[in-house]
Amino acid sequence: MPTTPNLDAQVDGPQYLGPATFLKTRSLSEPEELDEWRPDVAIVGAPWDDSTTYRPGARFGPRAVRVANYQPPSWHLDLEVAPFEVLKVVDYGDAVCYPGLTDQAHEAIRTRVAEVASRKIVPMVIGGDHSISLPILRGIASRGPVGMVHIDAHCDTGDDYLGSKFHHGAPFRRAVEEGLLDPKRTIQIGIRGGQNFMDGIEFSKSHGMRVVFIEEFAELGVDRVIEEARRVVGDGRTYISFDVDGLDPVYAPGTGTPEIGGLTTLEAQRLLRGLRGLNLIGGDVVEVAPPYDQTGNTALVGATIMFEILCLIADRNFGARAGGSGQPAGKR
Amino acid sequence: MPTTPNLDAQVDGPQYLGPATFLKTRSLSEPEELDEWRPDVAIVGAPWDDSTTYRPGARFGPRAVRVANYQPPSWHLDLEVAPFEVLKVVDYGDAVCYPGLTDQAHEAIRTRVAEVASRKIVPMVIGGDHSISLPILRGIASRGPVGMVHIDAHCDTGDDYLGSKFHHGAPFRRAVEEGLLDPKRTIQIGIRGGQNFMDGIEFSKSHGMRVVFIEEFAELGVDRVIEEARRVVGDGRTYISFDVDGLDPVYAPGTGTPEIGGLTTLEAQRLLRGLRGLNLIGGDVVEVAPPYDQTGNTALVGATIMFEILCLIADRNFGARAGGSGQPAGKR
Amino acid sequence: MPTTPNLDAQVDGPQYLGPATFLKTRSLSEPEELDEWRPDVAIVGAPWDDSTTYRPGARFGPRAVRVANYQPPSWHLDLEVAPFEVLKVVDYGDAVCYPGLTDQAHEAIRTRVAEVASRKIVPMVIGGDHSISLPILRGIASRGPVGMVHIDAHCDTGDDYLGSKFHHGAPFRRAVEEGLLDPKRTIQIGIRGGQNFMDGIEFSKSHGMRVVFIEEFAELGVDRVIEEARRVVGDGRTYISFDVDGLDPVYAPGTGTPEIGGLTTLEAQRLLRGLRGLNLIGGDVVEVAPPYDQTGNTALVGATIMFEILCLIADRNFGARAGGSGQPAGKR
Amino acid sequence: MPTTPNLDAQVDGPQYLGPATFLKTRSLSEPEELDEWRPDVAIVGAPWDDSTTYRPGARFGPRAVRVANYQPPSWHLDLEVAPFEVLKVVDYGDAVCYPGLTDQAHEAIRTRVAEVASRKIVPMVIGGDHSISLPILRGIASRGPVGMVHIDAHCDTGDDYLGSKFHHGAPFRRAVEEGLLDPKRTIQIGIRGGQNFMDGIEFSKSHGMRVVFIEEFAELGVDRVIEEARRVVGDGRTYISFDVDGLDPVYAPGTGTPEIGGLTTLEAQRLLRGLRGLNLIGGDVVEVAPPYDQTGNTALVGATIMFEILCLIADRNFGARAGGSGQPAGKR
Amino acid sequence: MPTTPNLDAQVDGPQYLGPATFLKTRSLSEPEELDEWRPDVAIVGAPWDDSTTYRPGARFGPRAVRVANYQPPSWHLDLEVAPFEVLKVVDYGDAVCYPGLTDQAHEAIRTRVAEVASRKIVPMVIGGDHSISLPILRGIASRGPVGMVHIDAHCDTGDDYLGSKFHHGAPFRRAVEEGLLDPKRTIQIGIRGGQNFMDGIEFSKSHGMRVVFIEEFAELGVDRVIEEARRVVGDGRTYISFDVDGLDPVYAPGTGTPEIGGLTTLEAQRLLRGLRGLNLIGGDVVEVAPPYDQTGNTALVGATIMFEILCLIADRNFGARAGGSGQPAGKR
Amino acid sequence: MPTTPNLDAQVDGPQYLGPATFLKTRSLSEPEELDEWRPDVAIVGAPWDDSTTYRPGARFGPRAVRVANYQPPSWHLDLEVAPFEVLKVVDYGDAVCYPGLTDQAHEAIRTRVAEVASRKIVPMVIGGDHSISLPILRGIASRGPVGMVHIDAHCDTGDDYLGSKFHHGAPFRRAVEEGLLDPKRTIQIGIRGGQNFMDGIEFSKSHGMRVVFIEEFAELGVDRVIEEARRVVGDGRTYISFDVDGLDPVYAPGTGTPEIGGLTTLEAQRLLRGLRGLNLIGGDVVEVAPPYDQTGNTALVGATIMFEILCLIADRNFGARAGGSGQPAGKR
Repeated sequence: MPTTPNLDAQVDGPQYLGPATFLKTRSLSEPEELDEWRPDVAIVGAPWDDSTTYRPGARFGPRAVRVANYQPPSWHLDLEVAPFEVLKVVDYGDAVCYPGLTDQAHEAIRTRVAEVASRKIVPMVIGGDHSISLPILRGIASRGPVGMVHIDAHCDTGDDYLGSKFHHGAPFRRAVEEGLLDPKRTIQIGIRGGQNFMDGIEFSKSHGMRVVFIEEFAELGVDRVIEEARRVVGDGRTYISFDVDGLDPVYAPGTGTPEIGGLTTLEAQRLLRGLRGLNLIGGDVVEVAPPYDQTGNTALVGATIMFEILCLIADRNFGARAGGSGQPAGKR
Repeated sequence: MPTTPNLDAQVDGPQYLGPATFLKTRSLSEPEELDEWRPDVAIVGAPWDDSTTYRPGARFGPRAVRVANYQPPSWHLDLEVAPFEVLKVVDYGDAVCYPGLTDQAHEAIRTRVAEVASRKIVPMVIGGDHSISLPILRGIASRGPVGMVHIDAHCDTGDDYLGSKFHHGAPFRRAVEEGLLDPKRTIQIGIRGGQNFMDGIEFSKSHGMRVVFIEEFAELGVDRVIEEARRVVGDGRTYISFDVDGLDPVYAPGTGTPEIGGLTTLEAQRLLRGLRGLNLIGGDVVEVAPPYDQTGNTALVGATIMFEILCLIADRNFGARAGGSGQPAGKR
Repeated sequence: MPTTPNLDAQVDGPQYLGPATFLKTRSLSEPEELDEWRPDVAIVGAPWDDSTTYRPGARFGPRAVRVANYQPPSWHLDLEVAPFEVLKVVDYGDAVCYPGLTDQAHEAIRTRVAEVASRKIVPMVIGGDHSISLPILRGIASRGPVGMVHIDAHCDTGDDYLGSKFHHGAPFRRAVEEGLLDPKRTIQIGIRGGQNFMDGIEFSKSHGMRVVFIEEFAELGVDRVIEEARRVVGDGRTYISFDVDGLDPVYAPGTGTPEIGGLTTLEAQRLLRGLRGLNLIGGDVVEVAPPYDQTGNTALVGATIMFEILCLIADRNFGARAGGSGQPAGKR
Repeated sequence: MPTTPNLDAQVDGPQYLGPATFLKTRSLSEPEELDEWRPDVAIVGAPWDDSTTYRPGARFGPRAVRVANYQPPSWHLDLEVAPFEVLKVVDYGDAVCYPGLTDQAHEAIRTRVAEVASRKIVPMVIGGDHSISLPILRGIASRGPVGMVHIDAHCDTGDDYLGSKFHHGAPFRRAVEEGLLDPKRTIQIGIRGGQNFMDGIEFSKSHGMRVVFIEEFAELGVDRVIEEARRVVGDGRTYISFDVDGLDPVYAPGTGTPEIGGLTTLEAQRLLRGLRGLNLIGGDVVEVAPPYDQTGNTALVGATIMFEILCLIADRNFGARAGGSGQPAGKR
Repeated sequence: MPTTPNLDAQVDGPQYLGPATFLKTRSLSEPEELDEWRPDVAIVGAPWDDSTTYRPGARFGPRAVRVANYQPPSWHLDLEVAPFEVLKVVDYGDAVCYPGLTDQAHEAIRTRVAEVASRKIVPMVIGGDHSISLPILRGIASRGPVGMVHIDAHCDTGDDYLGSKFHHGAPFRRAVEEGLLDPKRTIQIGIRGGQNFMDGIEFSKSHGMRVVFIEEFAELGVDRVIEEARRVVGDGRTYISFDVDGLDPVYAPGTGTPEIGGLTTLEAQRLLRGLRGLNLIGGDVVEVAPPYDQTGNTALVGATIMFEILCLIADRNFGARAGGSGQPAGKR
Repeated sequence: MPTTPNLDAQVDGPQYLGPATFLKTRSLSEPEELDEWRPDVAIVGAPWDDSTTYRPGARFGPRAVRVANYQPPSWHLDLEVAPFEVLKVVDYGDAVCYPGLTDQAHEAIRTRVAEVASRKIVPMVIGGDHSISLPILRGIASRGPVGMVHIDAHCDTGDDYLGSKFHHGAPFRRAVEEGLLDPKRTIQIGIRGGQNFMDGIEFSKSHGMRVVFIEEFAELGVDRVIEEARRVVGDGRTYISFDVDGLDPVYAPGTGTPEIGGLTTLEAQRLLRGLRGLNLIGGDVVEVAPPYDQTGNTALVGATIMFEILCLIADRNFGARAGGSGQPAGKR
């Protein structure tokens, strides 16, 4: 069991020292630096919230998530992996999003993600509102539609709203239409609340997405939802999209469209860990909106979920590199 | 499945526009308007907190609950009902309660509720401290004692405290004494904490109320508590009283007498939904105290619980109007 | 000296009862109602913040300002006027602004203000970000350019920013260009801070606006700034635009682009009172952003400043109706 | 110049240790202990807020003020006095006030203050809403009417409100009527805002109180207001009543009826220090309402103002004991 | 069933009156007073946080916990015990800890606890950061190593960190080394998160501590963890150490090193109650850090957990005194 | 007048993008990079608060100040200087300070500052508690004692406290003793409050420091205090130390030892600007403690004061480079 952190960190000392990068990983800003450093995973921020329909503020999410976590963990106690020993991770900064310029912002996000993904580096994106998942998928899924595990209160497969196709309640409808997302390999978990667009739920169902409403989640329990998720996405290339409003708002008060009655963080963590071994090609954590996050718990949750997904990637890589099977190893 | 909201709303646009009425329902203020508009349900506020024994502030509850919810939901995903398509709902404003004048305030609440109930309109009341449930029942239960599903940390069946019979820990003792409430058709769920008046718990038990302490709730689980609640209240006329301190204070920090170790909102929602088909004659959501609700989650919870109960009424009405049985329909 | 409030209010009781309208004034929503009720002043909300360049949230400003004030004041102690005795004031609701649709929102604001102003009713608008002043002036100033007293940290006469002509740092440049605002009859007070667009300051100066930087304000003192303001705007038709970031952020933390080192509220109140007798045709209070207003002081300030301007209008009207000169009367 | 604090404190260590008494002074609870310890000054709490007309919460004021100050100061830098060297100060606990029982609470306050004052000990009271000043004066002024320096936004000389003579906007009218307060030796400073009862202002003026509105305060400046205050109260027995809403709400957000545009704390401190040498027989600091005091600044202000008044008493006592004149000594 | 509280309280009235002692128990400060009063349990505060590695602030924990609870409960509903009828409880104040002086502070804590424990009084300590458990055990465990039920996110058995042996992540390693704690009779519950020192987990395991990671806790459920805890500690002398970061940070945001995904308060309460009948010789509740506790829930949790443990002691004592077996009685 | 910012920034886009450096200046971490980039000014953070005597938290100050400011200002409106056009500024990261290790932390600060100062680069340091000023001066003043303009509530010239010579109330006594600071060229402005160590005030006075208590500040006004400051420090090498508790705590609630009745930010800004042309060799802004800074205003103040001092340096440099005299130029 490793006892020494071995980060490729830029700065010594406690986490609250120096410029805030995600878990103190090295800050890169140019594509050439990606070629030079050849990381396995690149963190990207997408500070964008103009596609929000209710409470704006997620533009400050990437910075808050970077600032939130207090010390780069060296070891994942449950997955039993030391992510920074088996992965080289960098913080590739933010896509340049100016308020008010939707098309440019989405294109900037797509470009930055594509710079990463085209180099076979796995992108992990911090949002930003959920509209960003569409340009992320455009940047990732150029080789054909991917599967998705989607934790959220809302299906986000709604149609045009107020004349816009690209609001934060629509990215996955667009992604299906653009051939980026395979609805039959998509599972949506935690869906609830009166703010769902009915046309979205119909779209999800009629296109074959597996929708796990929160009531079904409560009845099935985490383990059986994991089974269902693994069945749906199978062995193919899979994306994880984690909207913090999938959690109950007491865990994530800092978000734009809260719905009471959601997942606990422990349920979400156990759910994610159950996905070990999947063929993950990227992920996002979205809708962290700091102006509503008085205790900072939402940002801490966002950072920890990012770390969980990172460890899933490390676990798979570790298997591949170490001769393992990529399947879940026996727990303690 | 309906896709278009069809509200009898006064104002277009996002929920945060215009004067705040509950879910943007039409604002009425005079009894004659009730005759003219003939609603099925009328929202009434009871901004009163002078009967609080610890932290005052619930006088601001009605306004906070009206302001909290961000968009009038068109459809209840789990109950599968579109409340505003089958019910005509209005916001009948607030009973006029001046600080310091207990008798007048309680009488104003009774009157306003009676104006509603006497017209066969179902009153849904936003508190205010829990003392308001007594005048509400006076306004509703003129035809004989009713049953009750009561979610709370405290039995609220205490005796005089400091010389007052009408404090917020006593309404249901008074209601039994006045013949408004049938204790044998009353179930109290979530009871816990050292601030309970012992004489209240004795009163509840000795009069035949079914008291489900939080420990029993945890052992039985939601489904069996639902069974128990349905068994206790039966087919008769039933009232729902929801004190937000029945929830754990992390879900409802904005309340006057918090007790740790309570229900989750999801448990509360599942519990309420299990009551579909009951003969509901009214309800209240009480003890939302905004001064202690920094994140606004308590108000959001209050508004959503109001919506849940509204959908129970809609579900039952829907059955009656559409030829249904009033019994729970099969879920998806 | 009047001792009894005489409001045309819709609801008795404390201010926190019933649907929140500005100071409990009657709620109107249709132009025909304006014809029926013939008010002197109409409050209009402009819940819009998509033209913000930094921290969004002012879309919730109109509701927060309406909720903030705790009791409709019957008398202004310093101006010695009872506004609701000499003015009929109504709350004409909000312009319907959907997030993301700038042109439609601005047009909706213009229309709603024009509905008011075309009936010789004085519009008083609650923002919203400062971009709304342009459509307001379009709705008011159809008869030719007006003068303006402008309290703000920023000149808001900047040029295009990121391809947009209509962001919240540009309304008064556009208003000059469109012939709505007479720069030579415009005074800007409280200007400071590094976030000013330099091209804006140059525009203000080169077009003849009187710019009172905060340092000059501190040197001159309130009384001499009042003299300067009265000299600049003269007897002509004059608009008041009050951006709460003109105040020091301790008085108005809930705002989008705070700049330290601003006016105190008492200075602002004294400044406004010094404007009595001016020919006021409308006004606005903008940039109240509730997500950053933990104590609610910003909303309270917004509501009180609205009341101050209302009393200026009442004072002038009172003069006209009662045979007075419209000039400042002797103080106690 | 003294360098060593010499407190009669119960507990060593930082102020945040042990049971919170005011500035760590000895806790007494019975009248006999007063006889035994023979203090010069006794701190009394009056945790009462049921006479509030708007935002309750001041019942928690005494505890918050006791907790607020972080270290017992040994020396007043400006008055040049070491209060705990020349005065014996104790914390005589709180009057027992149960919510809802106005008459009993007021009588409990009167009794506890009388226990102090009848022993020639100067009472300093922490409120509680402003209604407490009436029973305090009843407990102090048994020998005839006293003069008063009153800092406040409101005159608090209103008549019955909603059938009650004893609400927090009326104590000084009652005190004049009961012969406890000499209106001609009363000065009210900082008056402003639309929430004043007009009948109160008329009462104050017609009975000869000197009312310094905030506008006059701004024009005169602190030094001339001090002169005016000294002229009004003269050499007779004088009470100081300090309502924290006399300050601007940015200094005291935690209060029940805030009015923007008030005094700064430095102005208030300078004003109080200008009163040195007066014949002070007691004082209060009221309307600290912790539920609205997120930063704790209001409680810190309350504690510091208490300390300022204590030092005034020490300064006078010091003069008497040390052969001084009781008049202000020359400053450094 | 008792209906009347019978506290040895110093002050009548609501809990928020008077100097804050724990649940209004009598305040003692000198060892001689312990001899005079001969309590069964003594509350001790340890206001120390200089051994924190991330967010300081727990020095204010003892005061916040004392202030938090709103009324001294007379009866524990679930354990069916009236603690203040069977136990004499006093508040023995705080160990004098000055910032910066680690050795002195730890020695002051040891001394104050030893003053209690040497008199056969059970000490219950409010922290303070977790480093205080070491001096507490030094003060208690002079007769040989004790067992421990330890709820926490972290094992706190780490080695030197930055040259210090006594930081808040190491107390139980030191306690084992010093022969104060029997690792084989120690169970650690709720362990999780990347901030654990790996060497600590290894130490715990290699020395025979039973480590229940949060994932195992979720799988086993509360009842089986209780069984495991009872099996581990057996009948011997047992200490309870409750770090509030064992709870999910939504229940205890006010803490220094939060880790998402923890216990609920109800789980913690049920777990503790399952320990009835154990041979408890003392306990602590640590890491309440008020600067991060905006809603005050953490302090309320701390106070309630203290009460739970107190009732466990009362339950055991009750058995002994009343002829009972000390074993869990049948529940209602 | 410049209209285009011309920053040597690492990242395009709004300030909230990318890793937070001070005003988006380039991040350097190694001394060699200083040689390579040859900046004029280097920002250094000193995240240290273990020398605090009351409320810890300033360790998080450097990060909060870097995050606070929302856009790099291109021009100082009052000083009429474009700092980033005439100065090359970098962010040299933080001194590595581990909690608990005072000597090492102070030495790390000294070293990092010396790395800057020894290269003739002006260091501007963000604290951290005020103890850091001693190691900063050790790093700067190797060529002999410097003068100082010191804004603060406390003299910080106290003697040993609790056995430590290096607490945050003592740095300038030590600096005089070590020959780093010339007391006769030192002015302390804003001193007030009972928490001052009396021995500190005596030290300041007896060694010839000019102490401007807040009362004298109020009497003299800003302009005359500026004159006094310029007189005291003269033309020699001068340091600026700005403790945010010199401001009133409403402007800087996020600080460790708040004292009411302080400077306004506008007074502080005007005071600093009056120092233009001085021979500044470095400066610090200290005691920003984010845990107590709910609105973030303290961090915004800290960032803006840093910018003010930067512009003073730019103004002097601009004079030197552009042929100017270094003396204040005429204002617009």
